[in-house]
Amino acid sequence: MNLKAFVRDINDFPQTGIIFKDITPLFNDPEALKAAVQGLSSLVNGKQVDKVVGMESRGFIFAPILATELNAGFIPVRKKGKLPYDTISESYGLEYGTDELEIHVDAISPGDKVLVHDDVLATGGTAAAVRKMVEKLGGEVVQCNFLITLEFLNGRDKLPGIEVASLLQY
Amino acid sequence: MNLKAFVRDINDFPQTGIIFKDITPLFNDPEALKAAVQGLSSLVNGKQVDKVVGMESRGFIFAPILATELNAGFIPVRKKGKLPYDTISESYGLEYGTDELEIHVDAISPGDKVLVHDDVLATGGTAAAVRKMVEKLGGEVVQCNFLITLEFLNGRDKLPGIEVASLLQY
Repeated sequence: MNLKAFVRDINDFPQTGIIFKDITPLFNDPEALKAAVQGLSSLVNGKQVDKVVGMESRGFIFAPILATELNAGFIPVRKKGKLPYDTISESYGLEYGTDELEIHVDAISPGDKVLVHDDVLATGGTAAAVRKMVEKLGGEVVQCNFLITLEFLNGRDKLPGIEVASLLQY
Repeated sequence: MNLKAFVRDINDFPQTGIIFKDITPLFNDPEALKAAVQGLSSLVNGKQVDKVVGMESRGFIFAPILATELNAGFIPVRKKGKLPYDTISESYGLEYGTDELEIHVDAISPGDKVLVHDDVLATGGTAAAVRKMVEKLGGEVVQCNFLITLEFLNGRDKLPGIEVASLLQY
Protein backbone atom coordinates (compact mmCIF):
# COMPACT_ATOMS: atom_id res chain seq x y z
CA MET A 1 0.00 0.00 0.00
CA ASN A 2 1.39 3.41 -0.96
CA LEU A 3 0.99 5.26 2.33
CA LYS A 4 2.56 8.44 0.94
CA ALA A 5 -0.64 8.88 -1.08
CA PHE A 6 -2.36 9.53 2.28
CA VAL A 7 0.05 12.27 3.40
CA ARG A 8 -0.71 15.76 2.18
CA ASP A 9 1.53 18.82 2.12
CA ILE A 10 0.23 21.96 3.82
CA ASN A 11 2.21 25.04 2.86
CA ASP A 12 3.18 27.65 5.48
CA PHE A 13 1.98 25.69 8.53
CA PRO A 14 2.56 26.34 11.39
CA GLN A 15 4.86 29.09 10.08
CA THR A 16 5.63 30.72 6.75
CA GLY A 17 8.13 28.65 4.79
CA ILE A 18 7.33 25.34 6.50
CA ILE A 19 5.76 22.57 4.39
CA PHE A 20 3.83 20.52 6.96
CA LYS A 21 3.20 16.80 6.40
CA ASP A 22 -0.48 16.32 7.26
CA ILE A 23 -1.07 12.67 8.16
CA THR A 24 -4.76 12.97 9.07
CA PRO A 25 -5.89 11.51 5.69
CA LEU A 26 -3.92 8.38 6.59
CA PHE A 27 -5.77 8.01 9.93
CA ASN A 28 -9.08 8.68 8.21
CA ASP A 29 -8.74 5.62 5.96
CA PRO A 30 -9.26 2.29 7.80
CA GLU A 31 -6.96 0.29 5.50
CA ALA A 32 -4.18 2.89 5.53
CA LEU A 33 -4.40 3.14 9.33
CA LYS A 34 -4.02 -0.63 9.68
CA ALA A 35 -1.21 -0.77 7.13
CA ALA A 36 0.66 1.94 9.05
CA VAL A 37 0.28 0.02 12.32
CA GLN A 38 1.57 -3.17 10.71
CA GLY A 39 4.42 -1.29 9.06
CA LEU A 40 5.52 0.43 12.27
CA SER A 41 5.28 -2.85 14.14
CA SER A 42 7.38 -4.64 11.49
CA LEU A 43 10.13 -2.03 11.88
CA VAL A 44 10.67 -3.29 15.43
CA ASN A 45 11.81 -6.57 13.85
CA GLY A 46 11.10 -8.92 16.76
CA LYS A 47 13.08 -6.98 19.40
CA GLN A 48 11.98 -7.42 23.00
CA VAL A 49 10.08 -4.30 24.07
CA ASP A 50 8.79 -3.73 27.61
CA LYS A 51 7.54 -0.17 27.18
CA VAL A 52 6.49 1.99 24.24
CA VAL A 53 6.93 5.70 24.93
CA GLY A 54 4.80 8.11 22.89
CA MET A 55 5.13 11.88 22.80
CA GLU A 56 2.16 14.22 23.23
CA SER A 57 0.04 14.67 21.18
CA ARG A 58 0.54 12.90 17.84
CA GLY A 59 2.88 10.26 19.27
CA PHE A 60 -0.13 9.10 21.31
CA ILE A 61 -1.86 7.97 18.12
CA PHE A 62 0.35 4.98 17.27
CA ALA A 63 2.35 4.32 20.46
CA PRO A 64 -0.52 2.63 22.36
CA ILE A 65 -1.40 0.42 19.37
CA LEU A 66 2.27 -0.55 19.05
CA ALA A 67 2.27 -1.36 22.77
CA THR A 68 -0.68 -3.74 22.39
CA GLU A 69 0.92 -5.33 19.30
CA LEU A 70 4.25 -5.81 21.11
CA ASN A 71 2.73 -6.91 24.43
CA ALA A 72 4.29 -3.89 26.15
CA GLY A 73 3.06 -1.05 28.35
CA PHE A 74 2.38 2.42 26.94
CA ILE A 75 4.12 5.41 28.54
CA PRO A 76 3.00 8.97 27.76
CA VAL A 77 5.55 11.80 27.63
CA ARG A 78 3.76 15.11 28.01
CA LYS A 79 4.32 18.84 27.98
CA LYS A 80 5.24 20.38 31.33
CA GLY A 81 2.46 20.38 33.93
CA LYS A 82 0.18 17.85 32.26
CA LEU A 83 1.20 14.64 34.05
CA PRO A 84 -0.45 14.35 37.47
CA TYR A 85 2.11 12.27 39.41
CA ASP A 86 5.80 12.88 40.25
CA THR A 87 7.89 13.52 37.13
CA ILE A 88 11.34 14.18 35.75
CA SER A 89 11.70 16.68 32.93
CA GLU A 90 13.94 17.66 30.04
CA SER A 91 14.08 20.83 27.94
CA TYR A 92 14.51 20.53 24.20
CA GLY A 93 14.67 22.51 20.97
CA LEU A 94 11.77 22.06 18.55
CA GLU A 95 11.78 22.60 14.81
CA TYR A 96 9.97 25.82 15.64
CA GLY A 97 10.82 26.94 19.22
CA THR A 98 11.65 25.30 22.57
CA ASP A 99 9.64 23.38 25.13
CA GLU A 100 9.86 21.09 28.16
CA LEU A 101 8.76 17.46 28.37
CA GLU A 102 7.97 15.31 31.39
CA ILE A 103 7.68 11.61 32.19
CA HIS A 104 6.36 9.96 35.35
CA VAL A 105 9.14 8.74 37.67
CA ASP A 106 7.51 5.30 37.90
CA ALA A 107 6.96 4.93 34.14
CA ILE A 108 10.16 3.00 33.43
CA SER A 109 11.79 0.32 35.58
CA PRO A 110 15.57 -0.17 35.55
CA GLY A 111 16.47 -2.55 32.71
CA ASP A 112 13.28 -1.93 30.71
CA LYS A 113 13.71 -2.21 26.93
CA VAL A 114 12.04 0.90 25.53
CA LEU A 115 10.69 1.73 22.09
CA VAL A 116 10.37 5.49 21.56
CA HIS A 117 7.68 6.40 19.03
CA ASP A 118 6.64 9.70 17.50
CA ASP A 119 4.85 10.57 14.28
CA VAL A 120 7.63 12.65 12.72
CA LEU A 121 11.41 12.81 13.16
CA ALA A 122 12.32 16.40 12.37
CA THR A 123 15.39 17.93 14.06
CA GLY A 124 15.48 15.12 16.63
CA GLY A 125 15.32 17.38 19.69
CA THR A 126 12.20 15.79 21.10
CA ALA A 127 13.42 12.22 20.68
CA ALA A 128 16.82 13.09 22.18
CA ALA A 129 15.11 14.61 25.24
CA VAL A 130 12.95 11.50 25.65
CA ARG A 131 16.00 9.27 25.34
CA LYS A 132 17.71 11.22 28.16
CA MET A 133 14.69 10.81 30.44
CA VAL A 134 14.35 7.09 29.68
CA GLU A 135 18.05 6.55 30.44
CA LYS A 136 17.83 8.61 33.67
CA LEU A 137 15.14 6.18 34.82
CA GLY A 138 17.37 3.18 33.99
CA GLY A 139 15.70 2.14 30.74
CA GLU A 140 17.42 1.25 27.46
CA VAL A 141 16.11 2.68 24.17
CA VAL A 142 16.13 -0.21 21.69
CA GLN A 143 14.74 1.86 18.79
CA CYS A 144 13.38 5.28 17.93
CA ASN A 145 10.44 4.57 15.68
CA PHE A 146 8.73 7.15 13.47
CA LEU A 147 5.99 7.22 10.88
CA ILE A 148 7.90 9.88 8.93
CA THR A 149 11.50 11.06 8.80
CA LEU A 150 12.30 14.46 7.31
CA GLU A 151 15.80 13.44 6.18
CA PHE A 152 16.90 16.98 5.24
CA LEU A 153 16.71 18.02 8.93
CA ASN A 154 19.30 15.38 9.95
CA GLY A 155 17.46 14.36 13.13
CA ARG A 156 19.39 11.07 13.28
CA ASP A 157 22.50 13.04 14.24
CA LYS A 158 20.87 13.88 17.60
CA LEU A 159 20.41 10.17 18.39
CA PRO A 160 23.94 8.70 18.33
CA GLY A 161 24.15 4.98 19.11
CA ILE A 162 20.39 4.49 18.78
CA GLU A 163 18.64 2.57 15.99
CA VAL A 164 16.35 4.93 14.11
CA ALA A 165 13.57 3.43 11.97
CA SER A 166 10.80 5.09 10.02
CA LEU A 167 8.10 3.99 7.63
CA LEU A 168 8.18 6.97 5.26
CA GLN A 169 11.14 9.15 4.28
CA TYR A 170 11.07 12.62 2.76
CA MET B 1 -9.73 -7.96 35.38
CA ASN B 2 -10.26 -5.21 37.96
CA LEU B 3 -9.19 -2.17 35.97
CA LYS B 4 -9.99 0.21 38.81
CA ALA B 5 -6.93 -1.21 40.58
CA PHE B 6 -4.87 0.52 37.84
CA VAL B 7 -6.43 3.98 38.33
CA ARG B 8 -4.89 6.13 41.04
CA ASP B 9 -6.27 9.23 42.72
CA ILE B 10 -4.09 12.34 42.66
CA ASN B 11 -5.29 14.96 45.12
CA ASP B 12 -5.38 18.66 44.17
CA PHE B 13 -4.52 18.19 40.47
CA PRO B 14 -4.72 20.26 38.34
CA GLN B 15 -6.31 22.53 40.95
CA THR B 16 -6.87 22.47 44.71
CA GLY B 17 -9.94 20.45 45.59
CA ILE B 18 -9.90 18.27 42.46
CA ILE B 19 -9.24 14.56 42.85
CA PHE B 20 -7.74 13.57 39.50
CA LYS B 21 -8.10 10.03 38.14
CA ASP B 22 -4.63 9.09 36.89
CA ILE B 23 -4.93 6.32 34.31
CA THR B 24 -1.23 6.08 33.42
CA PRO B 25 -0.74 2.93 35.59
CA LEU B 26 -3.38 1.24 33.42
CA PHE B 27 -1.47 2.08 30.20
CA ASN B 28 1.78 0.97 31.81
CA ASP B 29 0.53 -2.60 32.31
CA PRO B 30 0.30 -4.62 29.06
CA GLU B 31 -2.57 -6.83 30.26
CA ALA B 32 -4.59 -3.93 31.67
CA LEU B 33 -4.07 -1.94 28.47
CA LYS B 34 -5.37 -4.82 26.36
CA ALA B 35 -8.28 -5.45 28.71
CA ALA B 36 -9.26 -1.77 28.47
CA VAL B 37 -9.18 -1.91 24.65
CA GLN B 38 -11.34 -5.04 24.62
CA GLY B 39 -13.74 -3.53 27.15
CA LEU B 40 -14.13 -0.25 25.25
CA SER B 41 -14.62 -2.16 22.02
CA SER B 42 -17.28 -4.40 23.61
CA LEU B 43 -19.23 -1.33 24.72
CA VAL B 44 -19.84 -0.53 21.04
CA ASN B 45 -21.86 -3.74 20.90
CA GLY B 46 -21.61 -4.48 17.19
CA LYS B 47 -22.83 -1.08 15.96
CA GLN B 48 -21.64 0.01 12.53
CA VAL B 49 -18.94 2.64 12.97
CA ASP B 50 -17.32 4.51 10.07
CA LYS B 51 -15.22 6.96 12.08
CA VAL B 52 -13.86 7.08 15.61
CA VAL B 53 -13.29 10.63 16.83
CA GLY B 54 -10.77 11.13 19.64
CA MET B 55 -10.14 14.33 21.56
CA GLU B 56 -6.62 15.72 22.14
CA SER B 57 -4.63 14.57 24.00
CA ARG B 58 -5.77 11.60 26.09
CA GLY B 59 -8.60 10.69 23.71
CA PHE B 60 -5.84 9.93 21.18
CA ILE B 61 -4.68 7.00 23.30
CA PHE B 62 -7.64 4.65 22.75
CA ALA B 63 -9.52 6.16 19.78
CA PRO B 64 -7.06 4.92 17.10
CA ILE B 65 -6.99 1.41 18.60
CA LEU B 66 -10.78 1.37 18.64
CA ALA B 67 -10.74 2.49 15.00
CA THR B 68 -8.54 -0.45 13.99
CA GLU B 69 -10.69 -2.86 16.03
CA LEU B 70 -13.90 -1.52 14.44
CA ASN B 71 -12.49 -1.24 10.90
CA ALA B 72 -13.11 2.51 10.97
CA GLY B 73 -11.06 5.65 10.33
CA PHE B 74 -9.62 7.70 13.20
CA ILE B 75 -10.41 11.42 13.36
CA PRO B 76 -8.48 13.74 15.68
CA VAL B 77 -10.23 16.69 17.34
CA ARG B 78 -7.63 19.19 18.48
CA LYS B 79 -7.20 22.44 20.35
CA LYS B 80 -7.49 25.59 18.23
CA GLY B 81 -4.64 26.14 15.77
CA LYS B 82 -3.18 22.62 15.85
CA LEU B 83 -4.88 21.07 12.81
CA PRO B 84 -3.13 22.07 9.58
CA TYR B 85 -6.01 21.90 7.04
CA ASP B 86 -9.35 23.75 6.86
CA THR B 87 -11.41 23.32 10.04
CA ILE B 88 -14.67 24.09 11.78
CA SER B 89 -14.55 24.92 15.48
CA GLU B 90 -16.67 24.90 18.63
CA SER B 91 -16.14 26.59 22.01
CA TYR B 92 -16.87 24.63 25.15
CA GLY B 93 -16.73 24.78 28.94
CA LEU B 94 -14.21 22.48 30.63
CA GLU B 95 -14.32 21.15 34.18
CA TYR B 96 -11.70 23.81 34.87
CA GLY B 97 -12.01 26.68 32.35
CA THR B 98 -13.01 27.13 28.68
CA ASP B 99 -11.39 26.24 25.39
CA GLU B 100 -12.00 25.84 21.65
CA LEU B 101 -11.84 22.63 19.64
CA GLU B 102 -11.40 22.07 15.92
CA ILE B 103 -12.02 19.29 13.40
CA HIS B 104 -10.97 19.09 9.76
CA VAL B 105 -13.80 19.90 7.34
CA ASP B 106 -13.09 16.71 5.37
CA ALA B 107 -12.90 14.45 8.44
CA ILE B 108 -16.53 13.31 8.33
CA SER B 109 -18.65 12.52 5.27
CA PRO B 110 -22.43 13.05 5.32
CA GLY B 111 -24.09 9.91 6.69
CA ASP B 112 -20.98 8.65 8.54
CA LYS B 113 -21.72 6.71 11.72
CA VAL B 114 -19.41 8.20 14.34
CA LEU B 115 -18.12 6.88 17.65
CA VAL B 116 -16.90 9.71 19.91
CA HIS B 117 -14.24 8.55 22.38
CA ASP B 118 -12.50 10.32 25.25
CA ASP B 119 -10.76 9.03 28.36
CA VAL B 120 -13.02 10.73 30.91
CA LEU B 121 -16.60 12.04 30.85
CA ALA B 122 -16.60 14.90 33.35
CA THR B 123 -19.06 17.78 32.82
CA GLY B 124 -19.70 16.70 29.21
CA GLY B 125 -18.77 20.03 27.63
CA THR B 126 -16.06 18.58 25.42
CA ALA B 127 -18.18 15.71 24.13
CA ALA B 128 -21.14 18.03 23.48
CA ALA B 129 -18.90 20.34 21.43
CA VAL B 130 -17.58 17.38 19.42
CA ARG B 131 -21.12 16.14 18.82
CA LYS B 132 -22.06 19.56 17.42
CA MET B 133 -19.11 19.56 15.03
CA VAL B 134 -19.78 15.99 13.86
CA GLU B 135 -23.43 16.85 13.19
CA LYS B 136 -22.48 20.08 11.35
CA LEU B 137 -20.42 17.91 8.99
CA GLY B 138 -23.40 15.57 8.42
CA GLY B 139 -22.28 12.71 10.65
CA GLU B 140 -24.38 10.80 13.19
CA VAL B 141 -22.97 10.08 16.65
CA VAL B 142 -23.88 6.47 17.43
CA GLN B 143 -22.23 6.43 20.87
CA CYS B 144 -20.10 8.55 23.18
CA ASN B 145 -17.59 6.11 24.60
CA PHE B 146 -15.41 6.77 27.67
CA LEU B 147 -12.93 4.88 29.77
CA ILE B 148 -14.23 6.65 32.89
CA THR B 149 -17.42 8.50 33.82
CA LEU B 150 -17.42 10.83 36.82
CA GLU B 151 -21.13 10.32 37.55
CA PHE B 152 -21.35 13.12 40.15
CA LEU B 153 -20.67 15.71 37.42
CA ASN B 154 -23.76 14.65 35.42
CA GLY B 155 -22.05 14.88 32.04
CA ARG B 156 -24.73 12.69 30.44
CA ASP B 157 -27.16 15.61 30.77
CA LYS B 158 -25.15 17.50 28.13
CA LEU B 159 -25.60 14.65 25.62
CA PRO B 160 -29.38 14.29 25.20
CA GLY B 161 -30.48 11.62 22.74
CA ILE B 162 -27.00 10.09 22.52
CA GLU B 163 -25.99 6.69 23.92
CA VAL B 164 -23.31 7.16 26.54
CA ALA B 165 -21.15 4.17 27.49
CA SER B 166 -18.18 3.90 29.83
CA LEU B 167 -16.02 1.14 31.20
CA LEU B 168 -15.49 2.52 34.71
CA GLN B 169 -17.86 4.61 36.80
CA TYR B 170 -16.99 6.78 39.82
